[in-house]
Amino acid sequence: MTLLVVGSIAYDSIETPVAKRENVLGGSAPFFAYAAGFFCPVQMVGVVGADWLPEYTEMFRKHGVDTAGIEIVPDGKTFRWSGKYHKNMNDRDTLETQLNVLGTFEPKLPENYRRSQFVYLGNCAPSTCLTTLDQLQGADFVVADTMNFWINTTRTDLDQLLKRIDGLIINDDEAKMLSGELNTVAAGRKILAMGPKFVIVKKGEHGAIFVSEYETYVVPAYPVEDVVDPTGAGDSFAGGLMGYIASKQGNLDGETIKNALVYGTIAASFGIEGFSFDRYKEISRADIDARYEAFRKIASF
Amino acid sequence: MTLLVVGSIAYDSIETPVAKRENVLGGSAPFFAYAAGFFCPVQMVGVVGADWLPEYTEMFRKHGVDTAGIEIVPDGKTFRWSGKYHKNMNDRDTLETQLNVLGTFEPKLPENYRRSQFVYLGNCAPSTCLTTLDQLQGADFVVADTMNFWINTTRTDLDQLLKRIDGLIINDDEAKMLSGELNTVAAGRKILAMGPKFVIVKKGEHGAIFVSEYETYVVPAYPVEDVVDPTGAGDSFAGGLMGYIASKQGNLDGETIKNALVYGTIAASFGIEGFSFDRYKEISRADIDARYEAFRKIASF
Repeated sequence: MTLLVVGSIAYDSIETPVAKRENVLGGSAPFFAYAAGFFCPVQMVGVVGADWLPEYTEMFRKHGVDTAGIEIVPDGKTFRWSGKYHKNMNDRDTLETQLNVLGTFEPKLPENYRRSQFVYLGNCAPSTCLTTLDQLQGADFVVADTMNFWINTTRTDLDQLLKRIDGLIINDDEAKMLSGELNTVAAGRKILAMGPKFVIVKKGEHGAIFVSEYETYVVPAYPVEDVVDPTGAGDSFAGGLMGYIASKQGNLDGETIKNALVYGTIAASFGIEGFSFDRYKEISRADIDARYEAFRKIASF
Repeated sequence: MTLLVVGSIAYDSIETPVAKRENVLGGSAPFFAYAAGFFCPVQMVGVVGADWLPEYTEMFRKHGVDTAGIEIVPDGKTFRWSGKYHKNMNDRDTLETQLNVLGTFEPKLPENYRRSQFVYLGNCAPSTCLTTLDQLQGADFVVADTMNFWINTTRTDLDQLLKRIDGLIINDDEAKMLSGELNTVAAGRKILAMGPKFVIVKKGEHGAIFVSEYETYVVPAYPVEDVVDPTGAGDSFAGGLMGYIASKQGNLDGETIKNALVYGTIAASFGIEGFSFDRYKEISRADIDARYEAFRKIASF
């Protein structure tokens, strides 16, 4: 099954306690698409400027990602984000955000994308997500991510969006902010009442929790000792997770959900071992499956 | 196999965002002993004052815990701790500590305790732990807990203790403090170099990590939505964990370690569902095994 992702495409400048990179590929759509590409065909929708490098299109194409949905604005510049990670590699400060072409982005889905069954709405404005949903013809598995900025500034749109999606993937802190609950499971449960059939709370190095009306699943994160760059980990997690579910034709039994959570954490674990897509470019599905087996040995009981 | 625990025995006064209890049984030795008592016979060493209630002795006796090692100081008062939990039920402020008889406690092991193979040194002064170790005849599985206070004030004794134990069980934050490392696995690995053969880092609601020279194991915590009182969770975790290992004659293969981590988190999950020993008193080993099976369904893959 093909999986459609709509999200930001960025050039990131990143500083960690040990290294620094400027203008490397980032954004929710690329990280999601690459991670999902290990599992199923992917269609990517996003916007870039004249500074977009054809080598990236080529990288995705080779990896099974259809890039026909990337809109190139000839007189524009790609969205830019720069941030600096704290010593703990979890917290970070945003140093600069240049919206550029992302500021006026209105996704226009290519005709053949509109019948996609599996859709991921990366971290865009809720109104942008709603515009995207309007173009879809009967997608039956729509998952969105959101963040503090939208929770605080566009709550009405977000509330509307929550009623139209099947699942929400959200950070621990943001789940607490959105729900007003301090316990992760209670937070997930309260968000269910806002619309989605399931909520997946991402806890970074502490793993993730899946909550639906009758089910709860928990997985730890694959332990990575030498984190190089955590940028994109959340979207890589979502990509591995949804890519796996799409590869199982959207079957959502307990075993598939747990395995999807695990494949999500494994996809993210590779991503954070290098800057940008450095580590991803070195690995194949076989590496992911090998780490899945290693993870079973250390975490499954 | 019998499991020996030496630790504090306390009367706790606890305030949570929703309720309050005064002078209820607490302390590292009781929580550890009760949790371990679901798995194997336990010997408990600690000190109390004239205010000790015989009903507690009876509660432990009925649960398979030998209380001959509890020293009663007739003209003394039992150690008292009072604390208040924050809204998140993780952070807490200590309101008052009255050391009382614990201040001058020097454990004297009954003769038949000295050949114990499995020993847990609850959170006592490292010098007290060392005095205890001197009384043991060839215990081959000694695990200790420690905390920020000892790391900051009695580092020389602690360093000596670390060289004489098999395993250290320690909180996330304290592992980072002791090692100077900010990554949990790296912290555990650095502590290995200080002496213990393995380190178990407790992450509260996020589970635990086991690190030895060649092995790493991770488990999430059993998700508890309605935490009533987290006091003693760490010692209950250690009790379930070591009780299970002692019941397996100290066999430390990977499956046993993972199951021990899981039984630790399950023991703790029951404990925090009530104040003091309220919830424990309602359950049996069958309840623990039932929750183990439920946990497998939601967390094992």
